[in-house]
Amino acid sequence: MSIIENLISQLTRLPGIGRKSAQRLAFFILTMPANEAKAIADAITDVKENAKFCSVCFNITADDPCEICSDPSRDRSRICVVEEPSNILALERTRSYNGLYHVLLGALSPLDGITPDRLKILELAQRVQSGGIQEIILATNPNTKGEMTAQYITEMLRQSGAGISRIAYGLPIGSDIEFADEVTLAKSLEGRRTL
Amino acid sequence: MSIIENLISQLTRLPGIGRKSAQRLAFFILTMPANEAKAIADAITDVKENAKFCSVCFNITADDPCEICSDPSRDRSRICVVEEPSNILALERTRSYNGLYHVLLGALSPLDGITPDRLKILELAQRVQSGGIQEIILATNPNTKGEMTAQYITEMLRQSGAGISRIAYGLPIGSDIEFADEVTLAKSLEGRRTL
Repeated sequence: MSIIENLISQLTRLPGIGRKSAQRLAFFILTMPANEAKAIADAITDVKENAKFCSVCFNITADDPCEICSDPSRDRSRICVVEEPSNILALERTRSYNGLYHVLLGALSPLDGITPDRLKILELAQRVQSGGIQEIILATNPNTKGEMTAQYITEMLRQSGAGISRIAYGLPIGSDIEFADEVTLAKSLEGRRTL
Repeated sequence: MSIIENLISQLTRLPGIGRKSAQRLAFFILTMPANEAKAIADAITDVKENAKFCSVCFNITADDPCEICSDPSRDRSRICVVEEPSNILALERTRSYNGLYHVLLGALSPLDGITPDRLKILELAQRVQSGGIQEIILATNPNTKGEMTAQYITEMLRQSGAGISRIAYGLPIGSDIEFADEVTLAKSLEGRRTL
């Protein structure tokens, strides 16, 4: 197998990259400046060699604790609870949250054997018990598993003294009421705010 | 920037990979077996460090001459002329050609300053002059530049004694006459074969 065919076949291992995309990527890489291509290869190696979970919040990080947990400018009285590390990236891009995070590494799904002890729920309870937390924002997904997880955590932390909130449901910005599904529209009505 | 964000931003340099695809790829890479991720990184590095043009046919290769030029089982009396190295991969996948190739590294386009001396046309003439070539198959693209290039080479090699052929135009297999454009359909009629 030639080196270019090897690169193509390696790239097709990635999700959503078929044979044609892989070929286009491979020939693009071939004509890229060498330092840029090296940066891609190094970033892959770096992630595989150095990525671990933050021992505090279970975000993915090279340093422990992670950048967010060790940032003195973050509001340490708030914890936003998410299912996956990728959710943190999405929330950070909003630039509208300055607290800490807690990654559950999944959502409850008893039928699949995902019980509370399989998630980082106990670790969340310990963080809350250690004090200083005013608000816990539950940002699990708005689907069955995410809702069940949010409810479980709400029950568990009810006596903790920390406020517990859930991210809002409603119509996506830029969407059209005409095309909203009825459950979302009902939630959107239910969550209306007085102006 | 965290290591995962670094990987995401590196991946967005690639064509057709937006922010969301890059994020999906990065988190996939994170959960891949380490040796598979390493194989991808190594394939990128390998291509950048070792890829060069074959001095005979201008295919991309790690070894010179390339695998095809140095394969004793290939028919050395036929040369298929293509515009780009990627075209060789497409033709090889058909498994219906066993001759050699010659990559022009482009197509004539005088308005863009792509004159014959900017392509590997002289090198093709030299290969043909050195003898033993029975057929030259022109597989440049069926568009203006590719046609112009095919005509130029036909004129240049007319006296060489080698047969010159052009890949067939016609309806793609699996397509519908109803939806064929008129130029393709006209070419398809013109190129009809007696059964």
